Amino acid sequence: MTEDRVVITPWQVTGKIDYEKLIEQFGTEPITEELLGRITKITGELHLQLRRRIFFSHRDLNWILDTYERGERFYLYTGRGPSGPTHIGHMIPWIFTKYLQDKFNAKLYFQLTDDEKSLWPPPGLAIDEVRHWTRENALDIIATGFQKGKTLLVADTMCARTLYNIAIEVAKHVTYSTVKAIFGLEDNSNIGIAFFPAMQAVPAFIESRFAGRNVPCLIPAAIDQDPYWRMTRDVAPKIGFLKPAQIHSRFLPGLLADGKMSASIPESAVFTTDDASTAERKIMNSFTGGRVTVEEQRRLGGDAEICPIFQYEYFLLEPDDSKAEDIRQRCLRGELLCGEHKAAVAEKVKAFLREHQERRERAKGCLDEFMVKDEYFTHE
Amino acid sequence: MTEDRVVITPWQVTGKIDYEKLIEQFGTEPITEELLGRITKITGELHLQLRRRIFFSHRDLNWILDTYERGERFYLYTGRGPSGPTHIGHMIPWIFTKYLQDKFNAKLYFQLTDDEKSLWPPPGLAIDEVRHWTRENALDIIATGFQKGKTLLVADTMCARTLYNIAIEVAKHVTYSTVKAIFGLEDNSNIGIAFFPAMQAVPAFIESRFAGRNVPCLIPAAIDQDPYWRMTRDVAPKIGFLKPAQIHSRFLPGLLADGKMSASIPESAVFTTDDASTAERKIMNSFTGGRVTVEEQRRLGGDAEICPIFQYEYFLLEPDDSKAEDIRQRCLRGELLCGEHKAAVAEKVKAFLREHQERRERAKGCLDEFMVKDEYFTHE
Repeated sequence: MTEDRVVITPWQVTGKIDYEKLIEQFGTEPITEELLGRITKITGELHLQLRRRIFFSHRDLNWILDTYERGERFYLYTGRGPSGPTHIGHMIPWIFTKYLQDKFNAKLYFQLTDDEKSLWPPPGLAIDEVRHWTRENALDIIATGFQKGKTLLVADTMCARTLYNIAIEVAKHVTYSTVKAIFGLEDNSNIGIAFFPAMQAVPAFIESRFAGRNVPCLIPAAIDQDPYWRMTRDVAPKIGFLKPAQIHSRFLPGLLADGKMSASIPESAVFTTDDASTAERKIMNSFTGGRVTVEEQRRLGGDAEICPIFQYEYFLLEPDDSKAEDIRQRCLRGELLCGEHKAAVAEKVKAFLREHQERRERAKGCLDEFMVKDEYFTHE
Repeated sequence: MTEDRVVITPWQVTGKIDYEKLIEQFGTEPITEELLGRITKITGELHLQLRRRIFFSHRDLNWILDTYERGERFYLYTGRGPSGPTHIGHMIPWIFTKYLQDKFNAKLYFQLTDDEKSLWPPPGLAIDEVRHWTRENALDIIATGFQKGKTLLVADTMCARTLYNIAIEVAKHVTYSTVKAIFGLEDNSNIGIAFFPAMQAVPAFIESRFAGRNVPCLIPAAIDQDPYWRMTRDVAPKIGFLKPAQIHSRFLPGLLADGKMSASIPESAVFTTDDASTAERKIMNSFTGGRVTVEEQRRLGGDAEICPIFQYEYFLLEPDDSKAEDIRQRCLRGELLCGEHKAAVAEKVKAFLREHQERRERAKGCLDEFMVKDEYFTHE
């Protein structure tokens, strides 16, 4: 796939992604060694997603650290469009967000954009289906380990009074031209999705609104969500709020050759509710960076960069950097064969799922303690 | 002003309006003698706004009467954009709506589009200002005499959870092209006002949504609101609801020569909170259909059709048809001079205001019984 066919919008990620080039294109900053040094000094340890530059880019992260060092608290905001089951790829930034919450003792708003998913892509999901996935995804979010009492799951339709009231302030400063340009909407797009970027902007301001003073906000999210935050940052000063800072992650590649993960293609990813044999089958059937024959693999080595099996290790399953590097080297040198590696990763995936599914089961008992309603917010 | 410069959108009414032509242009039906006969049979008496064709046009009114005669209840829906003080022109359709409520024992949803007024026209009003006018207008609405317990004042921002949830269903079926064409929006219009038509559609469906079965809805409103209901009627069957019926009123002309009434031009209308001397001064300074000199007036007569002083009588202040007709004839024959007529109308206006302001004062004690919140509506 040629580079110019790479498409990154909040609704579409295709092509082989050059992350360095994205930093240039989007005008963001790379995560530097110096920045990692600052974070280490504060947190005591760097999360593997920072060490390995899974989170690779940011906006205003230095400012967030400045304010934190001055004793100010910031809060976190991330989100999920509840259109299908959760896969391991979705969980990558959530796991990192939990690290941020724990290390910075930060409140977290986790938006579930159920409205978006009933509006887009056309014809949108039926509302009952969106509600189903909202609940299912919420269980995975809670199972990630976020702190009770400091983590608010905000489903747009459940908190619509609160969100809509702030969204109209945002919307006042966003033209249809802007959403056309940023999100690739067209004149035949529906007016709900045209308005939606204003709803998605709200959690970046909500804490300041109800605190009655500006509270810095940091948004950890995959890089494809950046267009929303660019718009949000443009509007912020116009309505008296701070621009939210951001930290951007790469995408975990899918298990099929095209690299995409999709809820509509079950074999493209391991889902959090897959049973052990399903997960094992998916891993064993995965596309890899290996060669067509064992002989070729031994002679030429594999390509770890494009290999989802290696990337599952790198993004999530192998916490030890030297072991991860060792695995990479053995792939490159053709010492580690794909069948053998798949079998090892399948075991790790099954262990991950076993633990996650236990926590997920327990999450069913405390869903209401995480999901907030309009009543949570103070109303005049 | 030439005919082709007549502009009628929900935000703009200019030019001398040919109401017969509007029926053709908008594709509505005239209120016929036969229809008036049906209404008389049911209600026992025709409101003067029907006898005098202040309400002159409709969609599906025969269907509403059919369902009523079969024993089905319909409900009423009308609204107000709270951007300034209430003038007598605003009250004309409200007074008629009260007649409908009383005669058909109908529930009424009265929407206050505070969101719209903070979004449009640019730059929109500050939210505190909109809230102020929402309360002020609500007092006038209550003072009109609507029945407590059967009348729900729905301010969009106060009921946003309920409204937004239904509005996204509507929005799914409305494209940006459509709102551009219907409401004259442009690409540099803000995305809040682009979405707003979906919010305004909601009360046409809300009773059916919460009743769990289709309940017919009749919308009495000035003809300039028709574009909203055309859109609403297009969407209705796509989301399983009945098309709302409509009945359309003419506009009471303003007191200045251009015929417009505007909250930003105090002398253009009598406002419900004007004191007696202010109201009297406005009436005495009014533009009329009279001639430049008394001599000419005696010789040529006045033009009652374009005269706001006569129209105040015709729309509101003279309930007796034969007396109203007598006044018209005396204007036309030059027997009734403008000064004399103004003095008479000023007295009637002052009497109207005295009574209204008493009721308005009492309304302050029961605002909360009329204004509903999200909690009023059942939530899953």
